[in-house]
Amino acid sequence: MPQTPTADVVIVGGGLIGTSIGWRLAQAGLRVTVVAGDAEAAASRVAAGMLAPVTETTFTEEKLLRLTLASIGMFDDFATEVGTASGLPVGLRRTPTLSVASTADDAARLGMLADYLTRIGLESERLTSRECRRQEPLLAPTIRSGLLVGGDWSCDNRLLWAALREAAGRAGVRRVDGAVGRLELAGDRVVGVRLSDGSGIATDQVVVAAGAWAGQLDLPLHLPVRPVKGQILRLDPAGLPQPGLTVRAFSQGAEVYLVPRESGHEVVVGATVEDLGFDPRVTAGGVYELLRDARAVIPMTAEYTLAETSVGYRPGTPDNAPILGASGIDGVTLATGHYRNGVLLTPITASVVAAAVLDGALPDVAAGFTLARFEERER
Amino acid sequence: MPQTPTADVVIVGGGLIGTSIGWRLAQAGLRVTVVAGDAEAAASRVAAGMLAPVTETTFTEEKLLRLTLASIGMFDDFATEVGTASGLPVGLRRTPTLSVASTADDAARLGMLADYLTRIGLESERLTSRECRRQEPLLAPTIRSGLLVGGDWSCDNRLLWAALREAAGRAGVRRVDGAVGRLELAGDRVVGVRLSDGSGIATDQVVVAAGAWAGQLDLPLHLPVRPVKGQILRLDPAGLPQPGLTVRAFSQGAEVYLVPRESGHEVVVGATVEDLGFDPRVTAGGVYELLRDARAVIPMTAEYTLAETSVGYRPGTPDNAPILGASGIDGVTLATGHYRNGVLLTPITASVVAAAVLDGALPDVAAGFTLARFEERER
Repeated sequence: MPQTPTADVVIVGGGLIGTSIGWRLAQAGLRVTVVAGDAEAAASRVAAGMLAPVTETTFTEEKLLRLTLASIGMFDDFATEVGTASGLPVGLRRTPTLSVASTADDAARLGMLADYLTRIGLESERLTSRECRRQEPLLAPTIRSGLLVGGDWSCDNRLLWAALREAAGRAGVRRVDGAVGRLELAGDRVVGVRLSDGSGIATDQVVVAAGAWAGQLDLPLHLPVRPVKGQILRLDPAGLPQPGLTVRAFSQGAEVYLVPRESGHEVVVGATVEDLGFDPRVTAGGVYELLRDARAVIPMTAEYTLAETSVGYRPGTPDNAPILGASGIDGVTLATGHYRNGVLLTPITASVVAAAVLDGALPDVAAGFTLARFEERER
Repeated sequence: MPQTPTADVVIVGGGLIGTSIGWRLAQAGLRVTVVAGDAEAAASRVAAGMLAPVTETTFTEEKLLRLTLASIGMFDDFATEVGTASGLPVGLRRTPTLSVASTADDAARLGMLADYLTRIGLESERLTSRECRRQEPLLAPTIRSGLLVGGDWSCDNRLLWAALREAAGRAGVRRVDGAVGRLELAGDRVVGVRLSDGSGIATDQVVVAAGAWAGQLDLPLHLPVRPVKGQILRLDPAGLPQPGLTVRAFSQGAEVYLVPRESGHEVVVGATVEDLGFDPRVTAGGVYELLRDARAVIPMTAEYTLAETSVGYRPGTPDNAPILGASGIDGVTLATGHYRNGVLLTPITASVVAAAVLDGALPDVAAGFTLARFEERER
């Protein structure tokens, strides 16, 4: 009989979250195996890479805002560390994000957001139409006002992910293709994982970082994570001028964002939000709406090459915030449910979840994000 | 030194036109070699496969109309023969085409076309909004009138092309990958072709059926063929209802058409018309306009999967009609410039060009389509 391989810790999911946690644990001396999952469908590949704690926030999510702000505060150092450890580019862009309004309703919404940000002590700058176009000359003349947020950046998540995988590999993380089908338990303790192909890995520590797929694991607990489908496009300016800033707008009730890359060869346009489960279809209607909204904001995008259409799944939770730390099963730690903030929350998730595995306790900054918050509600 | 292969006739271009001519010549006993060219970019692959002499006509193109009508008259038998000879499906659909109008301008245009058709003795039927929707229940309620043309069919050009290649192969046609770079001449006679990879084929008969690439051949004559770029989409209804008819409409000055397939897995939406030369870019603007116009005509298309985006090149000529027959160089026969009617004109082109090669004379029906018509104008 073949020997079952063993690991100090097995990470279920090899996206940004899983890979970065594995890297941190390997740096601490553990023998880490990451079971990669489906790279093609991974949100780490499909996402746009906005790092937008401020323009992404809503009035009801102050707790989450504290976490996203803490993570953006770590991002510069994190990106530098990943870059150095891997020798690869990580695609961090420290340029501002500009939220724009084309209608009176949009303008009022931006005004309320600006007031809210001021109230909680965050910086932003209201811009007139003219000022918007000075900041971003490619904007449509129909833009009537904007909100400039210097602290909302972006990162080329594909570059960051590739660099993280390399850094993790150099630190000794073993990466295994395939998906985890279920956890092996002995009583209320984990003793290993079983992959879909039938093979097993013995371990007494498992981190569930399976993104939108976390809810599909066969676990003796209820993990309230659901896939929230997003269709997203990648345009190639192919030599034409591209926006300098990340630009966001509302259009007909849906949000559109345009995220340029340093290379000049990619502007990401996202994204639909569809509660359809795992539905891999790129639809005519989804692509139509994204292209329509992108050209309404930056008309020149119509001249760009439509280089890629893809579908991803945000790991949604009932309160749009991640689920971090203890699972209720001995040896099983959770790091999922990052919804729209997975790239942004990578540095802090890596830190706090690695600490939870190593010390058995989640640092205070993440204390409000355990699974227990949903169980308490249900009682 | 390797022997140079020889052929009785070499066909430059392995699309529908070149393959069908080669097939006819092989049936007549000639040793035929087809140099295939770029299958990916071939109009035979990209095209929608409308067989629409009537709805495609304009008032100024009566001469072309006689040729397209003659070809649709041959299509049923041609398709049957290809199907029998190949043992493969050819995807001919004998369902009508419905041209629809959403504006008063469109309706007036359809009325003028109907009057013109009546004047020249062609059948069509004016439909009210209600009658349109009875014919095609998926039509948008904004459609105000239509013109139903029973004689305009469609054919799945990819199926037809595959079947033709098989039929030609069974008849002994040799198919060679690669592209012809130039013709070898001795005085004013052709003696062979030279491929881009440097290899040669000796022959004293060449048929130029290179579609939009015909103008790029190094020839001692002016061939007024230019590539007219078209972007085109393939949607997959994926189980949803699909249109039963080919539907055509004008939208914001551009034409859109939707061509369903018998399989239920493909509705072709085309096409942009762009005089940009060989520009392989699928653009955000091109895809946007096609999706916009398709959903304006048949709203349900928004729910379809966007399965494929592609770019093709129509071989355009100064009068939008093909160039058939003598080239002015002994042994070189032309079969190019089919612009928007390549699929439709395949049966008649195969017949008349094969006759020109075998008998040295173009049949009367095609007499008005020689290269000489442009030279006369230039004098």
